[in-house]
Amino acid sequence: MSRNMEGREAKEILDSILADYELDRTIDKMEDFYDQPNKEVIIDIIEKLMKIIYPGYYRDRAYKSYHANHHLSTLIEDVLYRLSRQIAKVSKFCPKLDGKCREQIEKESYEITVDFLRQIPKIREYLEGDLQAALEGDPAANSYGEIILAYPGLFAITINRLAHELFIRSVPLIPRIMTEYAHSITGIDIHPGATIGKHFFIDHGTGIVVGETTIIGDNVKIYQGVTLGALSTRGGQKLKNAKRHPTIEDNVTIYSGASILGGETVIGRDSVIGGNAFITKSIPAGTTVSIKGQELQFKQGGKTTMEISNLDQDENWFYII
Amino acid sequence: MSRNMEGREAKEILDSILADYELDRTIDKMEDFYDQPNKEVIIDIIEKLMKIIYPGYYRDRAYKSYHANHHLSTLIEDVLYRLSRQIAKVSKFCPKLDGKCREQIEKESYEITVDFLRQIPKIREYLEGDLQAALEGDPAANSYGEIILAYPGLFAITINRLAHELFIRSVPLIPRIMTEYAHSITGIDIHPGATIGKHFFIDHGTGIVVGETTIIGDNVKIYQGVTLGALSTRGGQKLKNAKRHPTIEDNVTIYSGASILGGETVIGRDSVIGGNAFITKSIPAGTTVSIKGQELQFKQGGKTTMEISNLDQDENWFYII
Amino acid sequence: MSRNMEGREAKEILDSILADYELDRTIDKMEDFYDQPNKEVIIDIIEKLMKIIYPGYYRDRAYKSYHANHHLSTLIEDVLYRLSRQIAKVSKFCPKLDGKCREQIEKESYEITVDFLRQIPKIREYLEGDLQAALEGDPAANSYGEIILAYPGLFAITINRLAHELFIRSVPLIPRIMTEYAHSITGIDIHPGATIGKHFFIDHGTGIVVGETTIIGDNVKIYQGVTLGALSTRGGQKLKNAKRHPTIEDNVTIYSGASILGGETVIGRDSVIGGNAFITKSIPAGTTVSIKGQELQFKQGGKTTMEISNLDQDENWFYII
Repeated sequence: MSRNMEGREAKEILDSILADYELDRTIDKMEDFYDQPNKEVIIDIIEKLMKIIYPGYYRDRAYKSYHANHHLSTLIEDVLYRLSRQIAKVSKFCPKLDGKCREQIEKESYEITVDFLRQIPKIREYLEGDLQAALEGDPAANSYGEIILAYPGLFAITINRLAHELFIRSVPLIPRIMTEYAHSITGIDIHPGATIGKHFFIDHGTGIVVGETTIIGDNVKIYQGVTLGALSTRGGQKLKNAKRHPTIEDNVTIYSGASILGGETVIGRDSVIGGNAFITKSIPAGTTVSIKGQELQFKQGGKTTMEISNLDQDENWFYII
Repeated sequence: MSRNMEGREAKEILDSILADYELDRTIDKMEDFYDQPNKEVIIDIIEKLMKIIYPGYYRDRAYKSYHANHHLSTLIEDVLYRLSRQIAKVSKFCPKLDGKCREQIEKESYEITVDFLRQIPKIREYLEGDLQAALEGDPAANSYGEIILAYPGLFAITINRLAHELFIRSVPLIPRIMTEYAHSITGIDIHPGATIGKHFFIDHGTGIVVGETTIIGDNVKIYQGVTLGALSTRGGQKLKNAKRHPTIEDNVTIYSGASILGGETVIGRDSVIGGNAFITKSIPAGTTVSIKGQELQFKQGGKTTMEISNLDQDENWFYII
Repeated sequence: MSRNMEGREAKEILDSILADYELDRTIDKMEDFYDQPNKEVIIDIIEKLMKIIYPGYYRDRAYKSYHANHHLSTLIEDVLYRLSRQIAKVSKFCPKLDGKCREQIEKESYEITVDFLRQIPKIREYLEGDLQAALEGDPAANSYGEIILAYPGLFAITINRLAHELFIRSVPLIPRIMTEYAHSITGIDIHPGATIGKHFFIDHGTGIVVGETTIIGDNVKIYQGVTLGALSTRGGQKLKNAKRHPTIEDNVTIYSGASILGGETVIGRDSVIGGNAFITKSIPAGTTVSIKGQELQFKQGGKTTMEISNLDQDENWFYII
């Protein structure tokens, strides 16, 4: 393949793509080229926040213990500088800041970032509770270190608690990039808008969906495949800002594969929702909900040998973990 | 631990593994060492294609707006050079090119790559439609930027539309490496063979499986946990090339957890498939299919207080989103 | 924003976080700063092990075929050195080694690592069987190379077989970090404690959970969304070390979405478990278990037009793949 020939074909492809850019599609952002948030920088900020929150667990070659304070100081300054720049970039998207001069946007972005970083001790207090809930709830857990370094649930909760603090300060886009990063690592999709109480425990995790307007109380446990969702998107954008997702009160356990749907649905405190249950109405406090078992058919050598209901199998059958 | 001792044990392990390599297992590829595709290079090509497709969203330090054309030109030349090399490597696997001389393989690989890159404006047109479908369909979506930068569904569709163009040009292996990369990032497993129409929207995404011979029309929406699958692999390799996966016509919505199975199964246009429904036969156009509700049992203080069917709860109960 | 002002606020945030560190929370590991395992190093070890196990598939710029032995030797020495250091770090966590002097811990860690690396030929023999099972079982599979480079199931099994060898040698934490890395890449959550026989095949994979005390025989196939789990964690830490997960005998196929739960549950050899089945009691050998179909309701133009059971649809309906 001669270089010339490659050059000609590359040029032709270039021209066709440039012509396509001229069509001003919604997928282009040519006009404000420098003003998109940078996903890689946001992931780097997440990694630095992990080091601040779990000192000693996420390591750094440059980290020497006799310089611990100095190292922490560098991490904080770096997050402060880079996060406030990223917030300034996205704040154009936000009606509240729109039209203000660049200096004003930078000042507000900086103030939001300072306020966000001030929440870290509070976030650490919540995460300590989540860590204890995980150790208490999972017989396979051997140490705090194992949960911090290996459990996807704790990682997803950590990112959610951080992203939620930005979300409630009206930072657009960045909180969602943060939680979708956690989603890609863990399979756990918690919208940054979701409000989550103390001692929250997620086991296994893959396939969990928690919607934007969900409210979760203290000491709640959820397992893989649980959906805390909305009932229909047929309303599309008209439903924006409505409470579309359920409220889960304190001390509720939701076993794997259960779906709880709708903005007016409240699961009362101390309730237990069995595996695969499908709930669209409120449940009173202290209720155990189980689905009546499947009918199972057994065949051997082509002949049906038995038909049973799961409920006959075991009254605890709905605790899938 | 003395270095000598380490050396002796390392040598013994080395010898045992080399002896194992001599057994000529199917998991080795010693003979054509340089001729495997390189997964890292393919991921790098994906990242460059994202920059070409969504200009301004996936950034590059080197990217200056007054050099936009020059930057794009560099991206295209790089993809052209590296992708045609990767295709040449795998084309040995392909019966069609087998036995031709290396020069011929390189020429054909280059032509396939040029032809692939010529499809980018068409792919961008499709993706713009997908983007609009996402914004219209999801009340939690705030901007095009949020969808492009954070939504796993759009990422998976983008990779699928690219990989499919290579798949239909008979490029082996590389399309699947591309879609499995998207699968690892998103939990969405769309085979590159699947044919997907305009305005396709995937919400949440984790746990979706779309098989090789699936055909999807325009304006289709699917939610997390949906399987568009085959009925049985007991045929194994004998089923290769058969249509094993369903056809979904235009304007169909499939709610979360539903499974639609079998190569002869057609979901007629304008149909709605309720959450968790299990479909193995064709559905006529304009049909809403819902599963009759679960029987739920409520217990309080050890006593059964109520038994209800989900259908009594809410007639919209099957819209899980 | 003046640098001074930034300095003042950064200092204030630093002080509040340092004060929080003083509270001696369970999420801190300040005291033994150098003694945490390093997740990045463990992931690097996994990548090197992949190169040793699948020679020719995972490439390295430095890898020249006429230096293949030398390259392999470097990989082995590197894994030996780094893995034994990581094991020494975590072995403090392990009661067995606690209190021994550092030299003794290092010697034992080295011996465990040597013993682990000696298992590689045996692990490769198992993986070759897994590879054949995948090619035979999946009509979409085109070559061994495609399965090795693209199939998440084989990746998860590879990591599990490696991690299991460390787990049974009582190495804490590291095996779980390894399998959770595979979980984050694949959505397949197999605890390193699970015992898995020959010719194991996982298709699609996302959403699979296999618990710590699961035992799986030879020639077992499982599909996406399968849970081999426990019945309840209400026992929490009291259940540690109990057999809480099922036993799956030889030649069993488990279709997607099925849950098999409980430590005393045994699925007899040559059985087939249908999609979405929920099993909490043992199943005799040679049994095909299917759930009796859902009742489906069809509506057109607002009127119910049909009610059918899935079983009427197709007797093979439960094979979801």
